[in-house]
Amino acid sequence: MFKFRLLVSAIALTGSMAVAAAEALPTTAPAPADNPTTAEKVELGKILYHDPRLSSTGTVACASCHNTMLGGEDNRPNSMGVNGQTGGRSAPTVWNSAFNKVQFWDGRAASLEAQAAGPVTNPIEMGMKSWDDVVARLKTIDGYQVAFEKAFGDKNSITKDNATKAIAAYERTLITPNSAYDKYVSGNKAALTEQQVRGLEKANQLGCTSCHSGPAFNGPGAFQKFPVISNGYFEAQHHFSKDGGLAEVTGKDSDKHMWKVPTLRNIALTAPYFHNGSVKTLDQAVRIMGKLQLDKDLSDADVNDIVAFLNALTGEFPHQTMPVLPGTPGKTFN
Amino acid sequence: MFKFRLLVSAIALTGSMAVAAAEALPTTAPAPADNPTTAEKVELGKILYHDPRLSSTGTVACASCHNTMLGGEDNRPNSMGVNGQTGGRSAPTVWNSAFNKVQFWDGRAASLEAQAAGPVTNPIEMGMKSWDDVVARLKTIDGYQVAFEKAFGDKNSITKDNATKAIAAYERTLITPNSAYDKYVSGNKAALTEQQVRGLEKANQLGCTSCHSGPAFNGPGAFQKFPVISNGYFEAQHHFSKDGGLAEVTGKDSDKHMWKVPTLRNIALTAPYFHNGSVKTLDQAVRIMGKLQLDKDLSDADVNDIVAFLNALTGEFPHQTMPVLPGTPGKTFN
Repeated sequence: MFKFRLLVSAIALTGSMAVAAAEALPTTAPAPADNPTTAEKVELGKILYHDPRLSSTGTVACASCHNTMLGGEDNRPNSMGVNGQTGGRSAPTVWNSAFNKVQFWDGRAASLEAQAAGPVTNPIEMGMKSWDDVVARLKTIDGYQVAFEKAFGDKNSITKDNATKAIAAYERTLITPNSAYDKYVSGNKAALTEQQVRGLEKANQLGCTSCHSGPAFNGPGAFQKFPVISNGYFEAQHHFSKDGGLAEVTGKDSDKHMWKVPTLRNIALTAPYFHNGSVKTLDQAVRIMGKLQLDKDLSDADVNDIVAFLNALTGEFPHQTMPVLPGTPGKTFN
Repeated sequence: MFKFRLLVSAIALTGSMAVAAAEALPTTAPAPADNPTTAEKVELGKILYHDPRLSSTGTVACASCHNTMLGGEDNRPNSMGVNGQTGGRSAPTVWNSAFNKVQFWDGRAASLEAQAAGPVTNPIEMGMKSWDDVVARLKTIDGYQVAFEKAFGDKNSITKDNATKAIAAYERTLITPNSAYDKYVSGNKAALTEQQVRGLEKANQLGCTSCHSGPAFNGPGAFQKFPVISNGYFEAQHHFSKDGGLAEVTGKDSDKHMWKVPTLRNIALTAPYFHNGSVKTLDQAVRIMGKLQLDKDLSDADVNDIVAFLNALTGEFPHQTMPVLPGTPGKTFN
């Protein structure tokens, strides 16, 4: 009880933002009014999400880079799209992405539905020429005709809009509750080790939680500048500033190096780190965040404690059945 | 009953090979004496089979090309390995591969264990430099230490031999029973349509079942020459003879254009066809087989009936749980 009170005090000290950090991860995610979550939509979305035929080559599914069998991404600096192509950013995790305020590293999509539309027609990701081509291909697969009708209620339901709605509905179910941290804030004080409690307190005291708070540790704001502090040593090593972030989309100077605040949930499983995946270990990521965001040289003890705490944010991964993708009997898919 | 008797007569006419064709697919596969199937080994094998970290880039798993969510392969002419590379042969299906007498298109592997060792270190497939590198990588993943120990009973069980044994043990569970054909030969005469029964009879009468008989329609022999008949028109279109088959491994002239007889199970789901995946549709594959193997110009009616029968060989795909791949908390996998 003593430790728990200590935690609450520490949180109280940092004000309302940090209090939000003491919430357990919800086990369900809210859905937008125009895309209520239904079992049929989730099932269709799971099939689409794992179907490599949504790519030009038939080799890259959503799940290829945002791997639901791993920590929701591919543990690579950048992902490998069709024909072995790679881009400049690291795939964000799909787990708990339902709790992101905005999507993509640069936050350019306001919803999971909008996000899902992007990679499919990105030439270096899934490489389809257009969503018309995707829809045309899906229409040749009888099993999709049936599954879209089940999910959306009428015979001509295979559209871009419905495909992205189904994928988003599935993604909203990808939640990993019951981490050690969740158990701790729900009252089980034995769920965290002493070191993890110390790490949590330090994360609060140092100011990590000014940006990374709330149940998914990705708020209260949606965006934050990175790096805040310019540092020649880390820049030479990691080239963080090469990528303009949101400004690459908006062209606005005020958006330069603005990024979505990523969730810290399951962060132990999503190495390498940062938008360009240039940092291989979590301890180095913590050290860099201390320096570039808070202008602090963290001690090894601080780093180890915070990393121990971050490991307590690894949740329980739900058991899923493997989808059976509908076939194209007697012919190829393209 | 009349139709069923007719079938039995037709089968009897073609002798003992074709009689073997009237067996339903077994629901379990025999395992070699040195690799008995156990639940722990199957579970580990499923994880390894779906783990892209068995490839140099971390992007290609066994399942990428032999997709367990589809018909056991990728519906591509040839598969795409690491860095977008492609080879000259089409991925065979993993479903029911336990019933193959030999493995790979050229039959160069005598067992599933021997097959599993190949693609991992093939530079254009999974691209690992050596199995020593694979083993070293697996040893850095704590969850694999635990899973190998569970499966093989002692602490230092992560070896090439055990990894391929586990993958083979999993593959032996990938069986698709209860096709319409299986129900038919088990006594349910309504399970096949009239056209499918006609197709089955024609396949017997024309001689397809001299090579494609037995429960998996891939025997009695393990190998067969293809093409038997040289045909300039199809050769110009499909270049079947460019690839020497087994002779490319053995160097023997007698092995030239010798290939494993592939199973016909689920063949409707494994387009495109032939060793080089150059034929997009099942009806054209049947026509070509008639000409090049039996020297017969099949009528459209024959082709349609045989294709209808082949569709009756699509089995029931077992429900599988999606494996949770063990993570590397706080760091990348390589």
